[in-house]
Amino acid sequence: MSRVYNFSAGPAMLPEEVLKTAAAEMLDYHGSGQSVMEMSHRSAVFEGIITQAEADIRELLSVPDNYKVLFMQGGGNQQFAAVPLNLMRNGVADYILTGQWAKKAAKEAEKYGKVNIIASSADKTFSYIPDCSDLPVDPMADYVYICENNTIYGTKYHQLPDTKGKTLVADVSSCFLSEKHDVEKYGILWGGVQKNVGPAGCAIVIIRDDLLREDINPMTPVMMNYKVTADNRSLYNTPPCYTIYICGLVFQWLKKMGGLDEMKRRNEEKAALLYNYLDSSAMFSSTVEPGSRSLMNVPFVTGNKDLDAEFIKKATESGFVNLKGHRTVGGMRASIYNAMPMEGVKALVEFMKDFEAAH
Amino acid sequence: MSRVYNFSAGPAMLPEEVLKTAAAEMLDYHGSGQSVMEMSHRSAVFEGIITQAEADIRELLSVPDNYKVLFMQGGGNQQFAAVPLNLMRNGVADYILTGQWAKKAAKEAEKYGKVNIIASSADKTFSYIPDCSDLPVDPMADYVYICENNTIYGTKYHQLPDTKGKTLVADVSSCFLSEKHDVEKYGILWGGVQKNVGPAGCAIVIIRDDLLREDINPMTPVMMNYKVTADNRSLYNTPPCYTIYICGLVFQWLKKMGGLDEMKRRNEEKAALLYNYLDSSAMFSSTVEPGSRSLMNVPFVTGNKDLDAEFIKKATESGFVNLKGHRTVGGMRASIYNAMPMEGVKALVEFMKDFEAAH
Repeated sequence: MSRVYNFSAGPAMLPEEVLKTAAAEMLDYHGSGQSVMEMSHRSAVFEGIITQAEADIRELLSVPDNYKVLFMQGGGNQQFAAVPLNLMRNGVADYILTGQWAKKAAKEAEKYGKVNIIASSADKTFSYIPDCSDLPVDPMADYVYICENNTIYGTKYHQLPDTKGKTLVADVSSCFLSEKHDVEKYGILWGGVQKNVGPAGCAIVIIRDDLLREDINPMTPVMMNYKVTADNRSLYNTPPCYTIYICGLVFQWLKKMGGLDEMKRRNEEKAALLYNYLDSSAMFSSTVEPGSRSLMNVPFVTGNKDLDAEFIKKATESGFVNLKGHRTVGGMRASIYNAMPMEGVKALVEFMKDFEAAH
Repeated sequence: MSRVYNFSAGPAMLPEEVLKTAAAEMLDYHGSGQSVMEMSHRSAVFEGIITQAEADIRELLSVPDNYKVLFMQGGGNQQFAAVPLNLMRNGVADYILTGQWAKKAAKEAEKYGKVNIIASSADKTFSYIPDCSDLPVDPMADYVYICENNTIYGTKYHQLPDTKGKTLVADVSSCFLSEKHDVEKYGILWGGVQKNVGPAGCAIVIIRDDLLREDINPMTPVMMNYKVTADNRSLYNTPPCYTIYICGLVFQWLKKMGGLDEMKRRNEEKAALLYNYLDSSAMFSSTVEPGSRSLMNVPFVTGNKDLDAEFIKKATESGFVNLKGHRTVGGMRASIYNAMPMEGVKALVEFMKDFEAAH
């Protein structure tokens, strides 16, 4: 079988060029006689890989000098605990609920302190981003937490909340590196890499250095301690070396593609093609309010479960895979991350038009 | 450069056959049109990979039905916290100190309860395993903890401690799958995979099912919760899919090699070759008492730091890499895990003989 168009929400499509490089370097990385999987994480050759990866993501996102970039294990759920463990001093945090991942983050934080839900879009199945211009921020809150792009519901903050001076913490997993983030507006932004950056097993945490403190919750496992991780340049323990290497290859691919402004342009173009069709179709429709739509995850429905099922079946047979929507939304979802080429979206829209015409 | 003989303590050498398969399947795993890095962890194709991997490790280790096999993220340091978080009910645990990793585990456990050091070999730089036939086990201890093979100091328990009925928990990272473990003697045995099994970023936890409980420390991050992990068959969150896939390829390689009894025979043969030479050499000597020696990690010294440095330099130039000993022991260390072929050890011993003859 040839390569498919993979619309998975994560783990997800990676640039073919990156996979080809990884395959070619599998038995011998740059003349070292070793696979990156086999290298001591204390070796000069791996030191080169992680140092270059950090430099490249700093360049891509214009990360200011007073922010550290951490490569941590465990993905999103690990950060759901790490954030309150490291940041709660008053024992209070404000969460905005825009979907399942924000809910899970809030639930995990409740183990460590008081959690206020200061806004939510649960009333309409998370199909929009709530108005965050005048939130009831708790004066005692140690931070305000958001999930910036909601993978399941296909929504995205097009404007960051007014946190009234409190530290903003954002899970950017499913929009990470899809465009530039204005890093200075965040205390922490972190992303599990398995959606838009690399293979599962790592989260990249970008954290303002005044938030790296020693007086954290004494129950914090050392693997979740931001300061220990930063002080050891992500090498306190053996990091997920191979995952970091692949992320590094993706960073280099992004630079070659023209950086994040160019990726944003491409992502907007891809998303517009799909949304424009959805808004004009008599059969398919978007489930998300126009002002809240994600560039990365596009849920859509026909309104008829049997027709949805037939569409997914036929699409899969034609090489458009992983289009089934999340069970809480139903229907379909096309995740169109950086690595999904314009041709993939064009081909999908053509397929949808043909399907619509045939019914 | 051709492939080197890599004596790294971990991440470490992997079977060349496994790397070749991984390279060949990089862009299209078994006709799926996707790399394993790109697959949804909820897809049927990945389900097949993780199910096969579990079945194979169960077969290799003859894991009894009342034990669960968990694939968890975070490696050793994550388990150092997970063990006390999940197992401490009386808030007491007994630790045996045989090196740096046991010490780190004990230190991490102190965050969650009272830790007794019931035996130690610190008095002689951890060059032996203490007598564990009549330990002062605390009647309140929730478990007795050991590090079964000590990567840095090259020691190994040749007999498990008498825990006087208490649950035995063992970190087997650096001897994992080097021979059969008698699983029923343990409550938990776990190994970070990056030494003898796969790429860094995963620990495999084999746990007796009565130890999977809900009434655990309420501060336990969900990512460290053994019961949640078991109930969700290691798929509560996105697991490190690619790492699990490579581990699975290694399990299949081990089965093809003849299983763990055959690996033990090979490992004993490799280790004997090196120890016999060390014991007969006038220049090199083992740092470990004969009755405590590891089959996997073999530290040795000349007794002269300059000579050690010259040896390491010349060895590296000749394609024997990562032979530098840990800074707390000095000298050299050859890690000869499953993937190190007999020819590699033979070539090293010949090189050492030549070096000795030339000096």
